[in-house]
Formats: sequence, structure tokens, C-alpha cells
Amino acid sequence: MSETELATPETKRPALGDEIVGRINQLATISETPAQLARIFLSPEHRIAADLILVWMREAGMEAHLDAIGNVCGRYEGDRPGLPCLMLGSHYDTVRDAGKWDGPLGLLTAISCVADLNRRGRRLPFAIEVVGFADEEGVRFASTLLGSRAVAGTFVESALNVRDRDGVSMREAMVKFGLDPEHIGAAARTRRELLAYVELHIEQGPVLEEKNLAVGVVTAIAGATRLAARLTGMAGHAGTVPMALRRDALAGAAECIGMVEEFCKTDEAGLVGTIGYIDAKPGATNVIPGLVSFTLDIRAPTDPHRKMAVADIVRRIEAIAKRRNLSLQLDVTHENRTVPCAPWLKAQVAEAVAAEGFSVFELPSGAGHDGMAMIDIADVAMLFVRCRGGISHHPDEHVELADADAGARVLLRLVENFRARE
Amino acid sequence: MSETELATPETKRPALGDEIVGRINQLATISETPAQLARIFLSPEHRIAADLILVWMREAGMEAHLDAIGNVCGRYEGDRPGLPCLMLGSHYDTVRDAGKWDGPLGLLTAISCVADLNRRGRRLPFAIEVVGFADEEGVRFASTLLGSRAVAGTFVESALNVRDRDGVSMREAMVKFGLDPEHIGAAARTRRELLAYVELHIEQGPVLEEKNLAVGVVTAIAGATRLAARLTGMAGHAGTVPMALRRDALAGAAECIGMVEEFCKTDEAGLVGTIGYIDAKPGATNVIPGLVSFTLDIRAPTDPHRKMAVADIVRRIEAIAKRRNLSLQLDVTHENRTVPCAPWLKAQVAEAVAAEGFSVFELPSGAGHDGMAMIDIADVAMLFVRCRGGISHHPDEHVELADADAGARVLLRLVENFRARE
Repeated sequence: MSETELATPETKRPALGDEIVGRINQLATISETPAQLARIFLSPEHRIAADLILVWMREAGMEAHLDAIGNVCGRYEGDRPGLPCLMLGSHYDTVRDAGKWDGPLGLLTAISCVADLNRRGRRLPFAIEVVGFADEEGVRFASTLLGSRAVAGTFVESALNVRDRDGVSMREAMVKFGLDPEHIGAAARTRRELLAYVELHIEQGPVLEEKNLAVGVVTAIAGATRLAARLTGMAGHAGTVPMALRRDALAGAAECIGMVEEFCKTDEAGLVGTIGYIDAKPGATNVIPGLVSFTLDIRAPTDPHRKMAVADIVRRIEAIAKRRNLSLQLDVTHENRTVPCAPWLKAQVAEAVAAEGFSVFELPSGAGHDGMAMIDIADVAMLFVRCRGGISHHPDEHVELADADAGARVLLRLVENFRARE
Repeated sequence: MSETELATPETKRPALGDEIVGRINQLATISETPAQLARIFLSPEHRIAADLILVWMREAGMEAHLDAIGNVCGRYEGDRPGLPCLMLGSHYDTVRDAGKWDGPLGLLTAISCVADLNRRGRRLPFAIEVVGFADEEGVRFASTLLGSRAVAGTFVESALNVRDRDGVSMREAMVKFGLDPEHIGAAARTRRELLAYVELHIEQGPVLEEKNLAVGVVTAIAGATRLAARLTGMAGHAGTVPMALRRDALAGAAECIGMVEEFCKTDEAGLVGTIGYIDAKPGATNVIPGLVSFTLDIRAPTDPHRKMAVADIVRRIEAIAKRRNLSLQLDVTHENRTVPCAPWLKAQVAEAVAAEGFSVFELPSGAGHDGMAMIDIADVAMLFVRCRGGISHHPDEHVELADADAGARVLLRLVENFRARE
């Protein structure tokens, strides 16, 4: 049976891709830096984006509000008011120098799906809620999933005291944004309000492209461990301290970076390790760095594999520091277990994929997503949309209009056919 | 003959060390950051320091003014007005998180020597000028010796357009400091105005301490080459791009840093190489760095050795970039040839050392100094003073009071016995 034979839409509907891609482009103009997209948690641009998304939600027939952490929340009632909801969502913050699809595609697709139901006057036997999470990337306060954790009721209050690189605390930034940091608890939802959480997202990897598929069904979100390392040596004059007497913190960090790369490259089970941030102090051309801070991000397809790798890498960093007579501070700043997608919900995603005429292909997510927090109050599933070259977190991140439209059709089909568990 | 037998001072003079060390401590309180000494070129604190040094110069009996680049300049006339001068000096800017002796010790010792002459009403058959150079370290605009280059008439006007890390151009910073960037040429002096340039400075290395000597006679200032490197790879998501497909600019930079360290460590002729500054963009924990900038500082005891080493290191960096499919931009930002101290002048420094009862010990300077610029308009000599552990460019930088006093006695002896060339 060919793919086209599988496609049997009950009614002919207008393509949603145009609206979604138009809004993706509009949202991409809201950035801290004009040349490079950056929409960082609690920035003025973040607020402008939130207000625009609220408008779109209301146009789609939803009640919409900004919640206590800055998530944009829309609700489309079911065939009677107050029913539990199927929650759809993704995030609207970005990394620095970001692509425009990571996050917004899932959020705007969900809004367009609701708008389509609303245009047809279609009410379902459950409510639909769409959430735009305020902070998934964790760029500003070095902690991810702040938005979805607030919704899941797992936001840790001490995070409010964390300061960004300019010394501004999350608490201060929230007040400036127009939020009350004392009431983050109000954002929390409960398990009985939610029937499930489903997120559409770009793949951010090269697998769907390789398989020539527009969409894929996610099996699990890979766990991640993030660490912050600080090596302290001895600053000194670049011209007068002989090489043999140096305690160069940057040379030590460079050895650690090389080790992590080699360790992950020689792993045969998909381990990836990244040093994304580094800072060397005092940072002058003619001074040997005395203090270097850097981050590590380690991911693997299974939790035991990741944990063993992290332990090995930590031991090797400790050995490098010891041999170089550098003092080491190494802290786990973030750890997420692997989150499996719920089989009953994943099956409905796969049904919707098939019903829209696509081959059903399952793959894990190497990237973290808000589902990692939402799992605490709901069963989770995800639908991936192909992105060009697997490129993400980069201006070249791209999704074809046809694929955005395919994603929207599958999501809408899933929503219309959705049956709650049991 | 023992050292004490060598000491035959003509007259008993009050020790100058107390005044010098007192002022070192006073100047160290003038800093951008209270906990870490940082007195950066054209900052408000730099101006406050300049004004204080001008006061000290005038107290010492000098005519004093701020010149067109921000150097503090004092002149103590000889036995008749308008004579050519013996110029003494050092710099009053610092690196970040600096020690308090590097620069100020030479400047304040020179001022105290003049004050001593002035107290005794002693005029010499030549004028003495003392210069506190405004920018030797080059922290702010990534170009060293701006102060002494202006005096030597070799300041390059295009430097005015260079911007600091906050985007402020040197031109703008000069105006804010109270200087007219259009008249830097007015700071230039000519060869016939100067009989010689002599600088006292801390060694910034461990040799005098090892030899148990308070002072040393400098043979030459080692040349240095500084390079700015930029590696461009491909940013990407830390969780989804397999290791084999990465073009990680930071992993490439780390390999370069390791290579430079190894290359210099295995050199047997005193080569030193330092990466003091590094920046990885976009700089987020969960993003593979796509762009990394770093600096290199390479020094060797002779020019041919340094040049060969730089050429070798550049070739190796190019090979690393090529193998990793990273694009490379590598520019020489600064190059100073080795500056030999003038034999006739060095001989007078050695005489003064001996006359004050110290063993004469000669050593090269691994660090750069303002003499590298002054050589263009005057013969140059330097006197080193021991510093604890050879530590410099660090808060632990320290000079014993007795050594500061020893340096002052030698410098004063040199000045009083100075004979112009021929």
C-alpha cells in the first residue's frame, strides 16, 4: 500500500502551513539583537513576543493569559465548560543567535490547529489548552525548563536568587517583566486537569531528512547531565613565567575539552558531550589565565550509559586538574532522566501520522524538551518535524513549508481523534 | 671582596623606600574594581591616578603636566633651563586583577629620586624628566605601549578607531578623559631632547630571587609576537548533532591551546607561549560553539628563535583548522623586536649597582616594557628589582621594602653620576 493510498482525510481543509510560517517569520523579528535572533527569558523582547502570542491565541478563539512565570496560556473549551484538557505546547524563548523554528513551530502549530477547530465551530469532548513556555533553553539563568517546571509544580523557589551574567537575579527580572515572583506557585497545574501533554517540535537532528520523512514519532526524550567546572591555577606574566612553572587554568581546561571530545567520539552508543561556554580570567593577552570556568553537557540514549559516561569524565577531569596542580570545582547543575513517551499516547500520534498518509517512523529525541518537566503531571508524547540538515540552534535552522503543513495536519488529526486514557 | 666592602656611599641619605612603598599602597587604592586592582587606560580611575601623580611630581620640585595621550610628565631642570634630559619612567596603568608594583614602582622611585635631589638643592648638568606612561599593558584596546609610542612619535593614528569590548573607541574614551585625540602628535619628543631613557621595574620573573639579589642589570627586552585567532565552525544543538558530524570551534581552539603549550614546553631555549583570552560564541551550555576567538602571545630570548617558533605554531594551527574543517582567521596584532640595552648606558647602570654595594648581575627581560617604544628616540637601559616568587600580573605580586629602597639608591646613584654619551 502506497503512502497516497493511506491518505484518506475525511474533509478537505485549508492548509495551515502558510499561517504558521508567516507567524514564525513575524516572531523572528522580535529579538534583542537585530542581526542575530535572541529572545531571552524575561527580556523586553520576550514580553513583546508574549503579548503577540496572546493576541493570536484570542484570535483562535481561546481565553488567554500570561501565567505567573511568564508562560502564555490559552484555553479552548470543550463541548461543555470546565472539562480536563489535552495540553499542547512548546516554548517561545530562544538561545542566542538562534534559529526561528525551535519552539515557536510547535506553539504556533497548536494555535493554528485550535483556530481551525474554532472556524469550523468544532467543540470536542475535552478542552484544549495551548502553552507557550517562557524558558525552555535556560540561557539566562543556566537552568532549563523553568516555564514547564512552574506548570508541573516542580519549580524550585531558590532559582529566584540565581543571577544572570549582568548580576540581575531572576526575582528582579520577573518584577521588571511585570510578574510577581512571590506567586509562581499559581502557575502550577494538577494531574487531574490534564488528559495528556503533546508537543510538536523540529527534530534538531538529521535522521528524518536521511529517511526522507516529513514527520516522526518520538519514543523518548534523552536524559542530560550538565556540569559547571571551575579550574583555578595561578595567573602570571605571559613573558616571564617559564612553561615548566606555570599553573595555567586555560591550558588545563583545553586538555579537559580535548578529553571530552575524544571520550565521546570513541563511544559507539551515541554519547555526545559539549563544552558550550568558557570564560578565562583575567582574560588579557599577556596574562596567563588563573581561573577558567566552563560548562559540560553530556547526553546518551539511556540513563545508565549517560551516568557511567559522566562518572568517567568527572574522574578524568579530576586527574587532569591534579596532575596540573589546579584546584577544581565541579558541580552538576542540571540532570534530567530519560523521559519515555507514554505508549497509549504515542500510539495515537502514530495513528494520526498514518491517517494523514505518512509512514510511521519512530526515533528518540537527543534534545531536551518541556515534556521532561510535564511528565510529572501528565503522560507525554511528541511529534517531530524534519528540519534541513539537522541544523538547530543556528540561523540556518529551516523547515520547509510543506513539512510545517504536514506537522499541522498530523497534530490536528491527533487532536480531533484524541481519546483519553482508559 | 665582599658586598659590604663594595658599599662606599659618599654621603648618608635618608632611605627613600618608605615614601615609595607608601605611595605604591596609596595608588593601589585607585581601581575600577574594589576587590581586584584594575586601572585601565582612560578610565575614570586612570584619571584620578594621573592627577595624584602630578601632585607628587610637583611636590618633588618638577614642572608637571598631562600630555596629549594621558602620560604624566614632570621636568626637573638642570643647572640651567632648557638642557636635554635624562628621562626616567614607567607606566601607571595595570592589567585586570593586577599587582600594585608593576609600573608604579619605577615611576614612583624616579619621583622620589628627584624629590631627594630637590631637597638637597642639587642641580645636575642636564635636566631630568619623569614620565608615567598612560598605557603600557594594552588591556583596553589590545595594543600595548600606546603611551610611550606617543612620546616616541610612533603612535599610529588609526589606533584611535579601535574599540574596546564595550564598543567605545579610543577616540571617544580620550575625549571623555579630557584629552583632544586630534593632538596626540603634541606628545612626541625628539632624539635631541633626550640623553637617554632609563627605567626601573620589577623583574616579574624568578631569577633575581633565585640568585638572592635585590637588583639586576637588564641586557635586552625580549621581543614578542601577539596574534589574534578566530576559528569558525558550525553551531549546533548539543544533544542532536553526532560527534562525527560536528565542526566545534571550541574543540578546535582547545587543540590549538594544547599544541602551543606542548610546543613551548619542549623548547629548550626559553620559548614561552600563552593564550590569555578566549571567547566562545554563542556561549550557551547546550549549543556547540560555532565561533571562537583567542589570542596568542609568543616570546623568545632572540628574534630569530621567536620568528621560527611563530611560523611553526601558525602552520600547526592552520593544519588543525584544516583537519577539523574550521575556517581560520589569524592576524599578527603586535610584534616587537628584541630591544638591546645600550652598552654605554648599561655600563653606567652596572657602575651604580656596584657603587651601592651590590653584585652586578645581568639578565634579559622576558616581559615587554616602554623601552621597546623609546628605543626609537633614545638609547635605553633598565634596572630590575626582585619580586617575590617571580609573580606578577597577580595580586600576590610583592616587593620587599628593602629591595624598593635598594632600587631607589641605585637609580639615584645612576642619575647623580650620569654622563651623556661621548
